[in-house]
Amino acid sequence: MTVIPHTATAPAVWLDALRHRCAADVHRFVTERAGEHFTGWAAETPAATALPEFVAGGKFLRPLFAYAGWRCGESENDAALRAVASLELLHCFALAQDDVMDGSARRRGRPALHVSFARWHESAGLGGSAARFGESAAILAGDLFLVWSEQMLRESGLGTDVLARGWPVHDHLRSELAVGQLGDLINDARTLPSWSDVLDVIRRKSGNYTVRRPLEFGAALAGCDTDVIDVLGTYGELIGEAFQFRDDLLGVFGDPAVTGKPAGDDLRERKASSVVVLAAELAGDRQRRELDDLLAADAVDPAAVARWQHLITATGARDQLEKLIDDRVHRALEAIDLAGLPDRPAAALTALAVRCTERVR
Amino acid sequence: MTVIPHTATAPAVWLDALRHRCAADVHRFVTERAGEHFTGWAAETPAATALPEFVAGGKFLRPLFAYAGWRCGESENDAALRAVASLELLHCFALAQDDVMDGSARRRGRPALHVSFARWHESAGLGGSAARFGESAAILAGDLFLVWSEQMLRESGLGTDVLARGWPVHDHLRSELAVGQLGDLINDARTLPSWSDVLDVIRRKSGNYTVRRPLEFGAALAGCDTDVIDVLGTYGELIGEAFQFRDDLLGVFGDPAVTGKPAGDDLRERKASSVVVLAAELAGDRQRRELDDLLAADAVDPAAVARWQHLITATGARDQLEKLIDDRVHRALEAIDLAGLPDRPAAALTALAVRCTERVR
Repeated sequence: MTVIPHTATAPAVWLDALRHRCAADVHRFVTERAGEHFTGWAAETPAATALPEFVAGGKFLRPLFAYAGWRCGESENDAALRAVASLELLHCFALAQDDVMDGSARRRGRPALHVSFARWHESAGLGGSAARFGESAAILAGDLFLVWSEQMLRESGLGTDVLARGWPVHDHLRSELAVGQLGDLINDARTLPSWSDVLDVIRRKSGNYTVRRPLEFGAALAGCDTDVIDVLGTYGELIGEAFQFRDDLLGVFGDPAVTGKPAGDDLRERKASSVVVLAAELAGDRQRRELDDLLAADAVDPAAVARWQHLITATGARDQLEKLIDDRVHRALEAIDLAGLPDRPAAALTALAVRCTERVR
Repeated sequence: MTVIPHTATAPAVWLDALRHRCAADVHRFVTERAGEHFTGWAAETPAATALPEFVAGGKFLRPLFAYAGWRCGESENDAALRAVASLELLHCFALAQDDVMDGSARRRGRPALHVSFARWHESAGLGGSAARFGESAAILAGDLFLVWSEQMLRESGLGTDVLARGWPVHDHLRSELAVGQLGDLINDARTLPSWSDVLDVIRRKSGNYTVRRPLEFGAALAGCDTDVIDVLGTYGELIGEAFQFRDDLLGVFGDPAVTGKPAGDDLRERKASSVVVLAAELAGDRQRRELDDLLAADAVDPAAVARWQHLITATGARDQLEKLIDDRVHRALEAIDLAGLPDRPAAALTALAVRCTERVR
């Protein structure tokens, strides 16, 4: 077991140690569940091994934010770390199902779960559509992650009185995530939603879910008072938005070798992402005609991705979004500085703000 | 509020009163959650009204079994009734997602959720595939039902010590349901799984989930001793199987006007149901050739449904399955008679055994 470094250690070292601990906890929990339920014929399916493998590869941002929230009111605690690690399982639920809904073939540089299941269906020579089976199986894998995330939290070892403080935020987070994903499906690029609709969905689905609610969840478990929770909410909303703006920039301009996804992935999926909608808002008449032309195309091939990238840059949307990211990070760090939080979580939140918004994958 | 009738009342009256109470509790809970989360643009989607409507139309078998289990060890209790009513939300989760996976267009005599969402997508003139949107939105509705079922249970008003006795069964039930559905997808009629594989999936997905685990869950909440839980387990396994055999017979021979589903629905969905697999096992050479012929057909039209029905009857599978149902009901009622359970749950379990296995829808 990795020992959590003491408070004098640099935030990055502390965060990495936490991430390793969370990854080990989550992997162990899912391996146990898989052993319990994938028995008989079910042991022959890829689910028995694919689910434990799937959970270990992430950035564990949500557990890290939640644990930073916890540390605003409480000291190091193994049970609390297991409790927040459960958020990574919730994230696996979202990823497994989003990849089906978005038709994303790859995840973290590997085939998406639904693709793995479809390949197994083919190689096993089963009847019916392999693609359809793969999608259904990945939805079910997502359901299991959702059930297991709650079970892992409940069985973390935190007392029922401590957990009782966290459930309202946890419940809110889960419902908000599903409603946000519904918004994401409705906000199709072809219908170009408004900037405010895009911001609303970003808030619900990505920002709140990735940063703000995990922070509030950890702080609620620790029994922090409302002053602290308010500061974390301010920071969380700002960094959550900045995180998603960065994600949207990577979805258009990211290097496939680093992101693990094809170039211009969001464009091919017709995502009404912040960068696309902002480009539409900033476009001059001629740029707008080219944009409408690109939107109307049946398929988005590599040449179209290059045209999109050039157009978005030319409208100024790329620079503008970088400015919005800078502005939000600046304001978030200011809020943390002024709040007088304990050193450890304050330093961690500063490091995480950078990690979330300057990342390349 | 419907008052729960006192113990002298006939079981059917008592069960109906419980069902009405559960339906009201579940409808209220989902209406509150929808009001909380379907705000802004989300209030314009059909989710805001479709979800509360969807939950009220069922038979509430799982809550009724669970409450019968509760009454084996405890007296009437409003909080316990709310706790078991949450299982109906879990069932809504399963139905919403199964209908997508099975491509079922109708549910309870109305369009399935994914069909309603697809129609809204079309009428709202949104971009992309309406069918695809409908499926994704129904999956998300299912996710919300899954989250809300657990939330409703946790907030039922039962003490944390009482709930703690129920969680292990509840956790097991949910994972087992998802793994069973995976088995259902793998057991495609075209590959004709073995009778024992079909029984295993029936046990996991339908039998345990509909009868056995709900009973054990209610009894665990009530703190019943292992003798009682063993008897309920025996009854639950037998009636669960008989329930699914009846369901499979209805899937082939059911009257669409009564079942709310098209005639021969399971045949068109290529379900490897008990009745189809049993027919294959009992078929003589000539019948087997006709069966292979029907299995190899690209589509299952009304004429093919009629041929299937005739063939299944001719193999003796229909009669045989009726005998298996009778046998299981007989043994289950015997187990209840011998166990010396309290009068109220004993009478309810007798009535429910009949209701589950002699039903026409």
